[in-house]
Amino acid sequence: MLKVAVVGASGYTGVELLRILYAHPEVAVTCVTSEQNAGKPVSAVFPTLRGRIDLVLENLEPAGISEKVDVVFTALPHKAAMEVVPTFLKMGKDVVDLSADYRLRDAETYGLWYEKHMNPELLAQAVYGLPELRRDVIREASLIANPGCYPTSTILGLAPLLKNKLIDPKSIIVDAKSGVSGAGRGAKVDNLYCEVNEGFKAYGVGGVHRHIPEIEQELSLLNGSPLAISFTPHLVPMDRGILATIYSTPLKGVTAAELVELYQACYDGEPFVRVLPEGSFPSTAQVRGSNFCDIGVTVDKRTGRIIVVSAIDNVVKGASGQAVQNMNLMCGLPETLGLDFLPIFP
Amino acid sequence: MLKVAVVGASGYTGVELLRILYAHPEVAVTCVTSEQNAGKPVSAVFPTLRGRIDLVLENLEPAGISEKVDVVFTALPHKAAMEVVPTFLKMGKDVVDLSADYRLRDAETYGLWYEKHMNPELLAQAVYGLPELRRDVIREASLIANPGCYPTSTILGLAPLLKNKLIDPKSIIVDAKSGVSGAGRGAKVDNLYCEVNEGFKAYGVGGVHRHIPEIEQELSLLNGSPLAISFTPHLVPMDRGILATIYSTPLKGVTAAELVELYQACYDGEPFVRVLPEGSFPSTAQVRGSNFCDIGVTVDKRTGRIIVVSAIDNVVKGASGQAVQNMNLMCGLPETLGLDFLPIFP
Amino acid sequence: MLKVAVVGASGYTGVELLRILYAHPEVAVTCVTSEQNAGKPVSAVFPTLRGRIDLVLENLEPAGISEKVDVVFTALPHKAAMEVVPTFLKMGKDVVDLSADYRLRDAETYGLWYEKHMNPELLAQAVYGLPELRRDVIREASLIANPGCYPTSTILGLAPLLKNKLIDPKSIIVDAKSGVSGAGRGAKVDNLYCEVNEGFKAYGVGGVHRHIPEIEQELSLLNGSPLAISFTPHLVPMDRGILATIYSTPLKGVTAAELVELYQACYDGEPFVRVLPEGSFPSTAQVRGSNFCDIGVTVDKRTGRIIVVSAIDNVVKGASGQAVQNMNLMCGLPETLGLDFLPIFP
Amino acid sequence: MLKVAVVGASGYTGVELLRILYAHPEVAVTCVTSEQNAGKPVSAVFPTLRGRIDLVLENLEPAGISEKVDVVFTALPHKAAMEVVPTFLKMGKDVVDLSADYRLRDAETYGLWYEKHMNPELLAQAVYGLPELRRDVIREASLIANPGCYPTSTILGLAPLLKNKLIDPKSIIVDAKSGVSGAGRGAKVDNLYCEVNEGFKAYGVGGVHRHIPEIEQELSLLNGSPLAISFTPHLVPMDRGILATIYSTPLKGVTAAELVELYQACYDGEPFVRVLPEGSFPSTAQVRGSNFCDIGVTVDKRTGRIIVVSAIDNVVKGASGQAVQNMNLMCGLPETLGLDFLPIFP
Repeated sequence: MLKVAVVGASGYTGVELLRILYAHPEVAVTCVTSEQNAGKPVSAVFPTLRGRIDLVLENLEPAGISEKVDVVFTALPHKAAMEVVPTFLKMGKDVVDLSADYRLRDAETYGLWYEKHMNPELLAQAVYGLPELRRDVIREASLIANPGCYPTSTILGLAPLLKNKLIDPKSIIVDAKSGVSGAGRGAKVDNLYCEVNEGFKAYGVGGVHRHIPEIEQELSLLNGSPLAISFTPHLVPMDRGILATIYSTPLKGVTAAELVELYQACYDGEPFVRVLPEGSFPSTAQVRGSNFCDIGVTVDKRTGRIIVVSAIDNVVKGASGQAVQNMNLMCGLPETLGLDFLPIFP
Repeated sequence: MLKVAVVGASGYTGVELLRILYAHPEVAVTCVTSEQNAGKPVSAVFPTLRGRIDLVLENLEPAGISEKVDVVFTALPHKAAMEVVPTFLKMGKDVVDLSADYRLRDAETYGLWYEKHMNPELLAQAVYGLPELRRDVIREASLIANPGCYPTSTILGLAPLLKNKLIDPKSIIVDAKSGVSGAGRGAKVDNLYCEVNEGFKAYGVGGVHRHIPEIEQELSLLNGSPLAISFTPHLVPMDRGILATIYSTPLKGVTAAELVELYQACYDGEPFVRVLPEGSFPSTAQVRGSNFCDIGVTVDKRTGRIIVVSAIDNVVKGASGQAVQNMNLMCGLPETLGLDFLPIFP
Repeated sequence: MLKVAVVGASGYTGVELLRILYAHPEVAVTCVTSEQNAGKPVSAVFPTLRGRIDLVLENLEPAGISEKVDVVFTALPHKAAMEVVPTFLKMGKDVVDLSADYRLRDAETYGLWYEKHMNPELLAQAVYGLPELRRDVIREASLIANPGCYPTSTILGLAPLLKNKLIDPKSIIVDAKSGVSGAGRGAKVDNLYCEVNEGFKAYGVGGVHRHIPEIEQELSLLNGSPLAISFTPHLVPMDRGILATIYSTPLKGVTAAELVELYQACYDGEPFVRVLPEGSFPSTAQVRGSNFCDIGVTVDKRTGRIIVVSAIDNVVKGASGQAVQNMNLMCGLPETLGLDFLPIFP
Repeated sequence: MLKVAVVGASGYTGVELLRILYAHPEVAVTCVTSEQNAGKPVSAVFPTLRGRIDLVLENLEPAGISEKVDVVFTALPHKAAMEVVPTFLKMGKDVVDLSADYRLRDAETYGLWYEKHMNPELLAQAVYGLPELRRDVIREASLIANPGCYPTSTILGLAPLLKNKLIDPKSIIVDAKSGVSGAGRGAKVDNLYCEVNEGFKAYGVGGVHRHIPEIEQELSLLNGSPLAISFTPHLVPMDRGILATIYSTPLKGVTAAELVELYQACYDGEPFVRVLPEGSFPSTAQVRGSNFCDIGVTVDKRTGRIIVVSAIDNVVKGASGQAVQNMNLMCGLPETLGLDFLPIFP
């Protein structure tokens, strides 16, 4: 039985970790922290947990926590994560960090999009935790940089095309849409019910969203040389879900049937990627609450462009579910353990 | 491993049964039926199931089905259920019927609110499957009448008061609110997104909803003599959840603290009923996707009335979750097996 | 052309006043204030107004504002209103106050439910602005206490019964449901999209909501002697709308048809109250964006209780629309001027 | 006072026409039709109209209707429109057709995307009613083909770029998102509340949506030569609104500031197009219920692409509001008459 800490348990990814880990047969959550709510039972912050998880939220003291657990999930804002992760590592703990702090291999890029990195020496050690791309390295890692939600859906959607050199890397446009949980649980007017409900908008228009360098880093690796994408995120009035509609220009003619076959081959055996049959496309409603990434692909015959549609639950495969998947790999457990639940519908 | 059939698998309670049973360690669903969609894979009707449940929907042939399974869940409209349940019983199968057909002990009452009953002789044999009230009888039953969603929330909310003769039975008013999944999956203008969204309404006003005789039957048993209630259902623009706000007049003075204590004692040890501390009241959001029934209770000091607020997920504790709970009991399995998952939030 | 100030223009009732007044043929809004956003164009706070209302938000200086306008709408939180209303009155302005500060005639009651009143001498002068009950007095008033949203729907729903002494005044139970805009625009976790969406809950359970004394004051006047009600508010995941389901016990037998006839007679000629035919009940969706109050009434034959269902748009008839209706009356304009627009559906 | 018929008044664009026309000072709606609901008061189909519009729905008899009215709005499905429009024209009526039947100038293209055209001779006579592009021709027309919702937002978003030959016409990608009212009021499982709510999906992926030829026709005219676009529609869980995110490659370097200036110049004086300041982008929530088209534009410096975001209310500027704007122009009324109302928020 692994003893696990969820550091930063009063946000949406925190409570989702607790939901998933509660049903995990090889895990016992023994520590939860929240600076804001320290001293309160976690079930007072999230009454969904009432009667099942009665832990009291602690202050974030990495050394003390390390004594009590084997694995640490850090579900903190960026910066807050890199303030504590080094201590956990020094204490020999396995860490799955859900923040952005260890996702970029290049400290300078991190500095450009976020701020000066506090422990750049750890970047080489951290493994970008997308199991479909680097399962074996994850198994050996002690620090996992858990991918962002937009990057997960985008990279899985494009990997087969780039690996197989099928598209012009300069042609990629990602039009992405996210549910509101992606904006976090902070008390901001912009995220009030009445501000968000019954409206749809773009944000971060013009290539300024912080997930861009992360996506480009991984796509460039797949491509074999640097590339740049156009990426526009949008806010959908729903709790959960990301859908990315991805446009690219093939280097030579290709049919929808060939593409579907390619994707199915590429993701054959992957437990959490479902490639849809030709003519079917995903909906976030069909992955809600699950660790699946559903992908549909086709060709627009009139313009020749390839269109990939990729859907995940941003809180599960885009955050906490993927974090548990990484933990399973790191700890030598079956990859799907505790994650093989179906989407909830409706 | 129990072999199980889900009869009527193309509605919302059907797919929820499949979701829950998929994760149940002692169950294999080996047969799914749908008159409308026979011949199609169930995952074509509900793409959430894709890659995990690949059964093909069959026509509803009770005899043939009986040869393949141990337990049958009938998730059919009323009338359709009583057309097939007798055959399943004759073939020696255990049946959990999610329709209204076997909930009323009195065929005449059934006739009054629904239509003429086709096999009234089975009503005495059927057990009204509310485990919190009659766990032991359920264990011995072969035909479970799985309770309605409104009745589940209402009866659990009132049982402690009636059992203890604390209230005037003529004073009960139940103001109940349901998410839209309760209206089923039929193609009706009234249930279109744009008709329901951003609106709130009452329906069945004036004591005409078909769940009333079912509620009154069970409350009358608890009360020891017949009673009648006022019951008004409402439609909430959300997928899942029922919240019942229940008003009654105590026979003598009582405090909120005493009531909370009474409820906690009454439901002590119940795995799926959570009595909230004094001053806390439930939200459907805190039980969504789970088998919990959350209950809060207080007294309005100004008028002396007792107010109980009771919340469930109508598709889980109000239908498919409770059905599995009943199956566990019938089949000698631990009552919570496959049901001990947490609510999904947000 | 009336010159009008909207004091507190950065909340939902403020922007709704601006929307309505923009289309009012006899009004020019010449001043808008907001402490928080002073110096910004109001269209920067509410981009809906862009290109049409280009006023800059001012600080709240009552004396200076009074020089520029004829009528003042104070759309402020309670307490903030009573800090400035006396100055506007001294300067001879007509004031429609949308806060709770002048709704209770009794300063002691105000103190009990809110805090110590700062200018109790004005309470006798203020007129509770429910035009359907006291149109003539409103015409002569200089200070209107614009009714709360819950009180508007409740009082209009019960007035015909109480005026005609048809019910036991001790039997009244009001189960009320509100959209989220009623909670205001403050940045609170509780009102975030993901906290509210897909959930339904009661709040202020047990007779503690501040609208209770206001409702009881008006119902007691209609009744001719003091009465107390049970009142439970609930939060509906939608932007706008209040629906009140009101239960009471008639003093003698009455039919649904008789009640509908009574209500139709009582509200005959009222421009904004629509009494529905027997068997029809209102939905908030059918009044959204309009100044209507829709009312349906029936009898539960099984229990004898009368059930009234009353629906308004909380931001219009429950706040800003009613405020304009009051302004029209105060200023000698036709009562429906600028308010005769239809609900928006879907 | 114009006498007006709304033919096909039981759909969402029909009821929206009635809402808008009710407040129009120069219009009296004297005839409403619905095959399905003939004989019922229109307010029985749409209770929002109760007490204000008491017309009875008639059968669709073009000759008889023509005797009673000056202008006809046909809010019918495609095909149903071309069955009756010729009669209205023969009877000398002005027609605004909200269907697709007269939007394409080329009967063969219509045949390809819809079916064989029944009166292709009228296509040359019909005027595509986008006032911002062809106000003068609209004034002289007797048959207006009212633009589709996706085309309105897309064409207004791209017109300044194409008119000024700023972009590579082969580079255009339109990623469009619509609220659910765009799917109409037919009773289909796909549009049930629980199917749509809390989900986001693409549909018509791969260049197969019927609005494509309409968009390309108008863009090609602006461009001066034929072009083809990639167009992917998506369904947003909200009632109203379309947002189009439009990508294109400029022919030479251009800055965001220059583009905003260009757009402002291009739409200077347009009553219903609001070009947002640099760095601001539209939300459908900011145009809801209004006839506005809000447009934001920028450049992605990293890839050089131009990104335009364009938002309308699909039921207003995308259908019924634009239809009234066209009627105003056809009938010599001020273009904004009856349409100068603000968006409703929240």
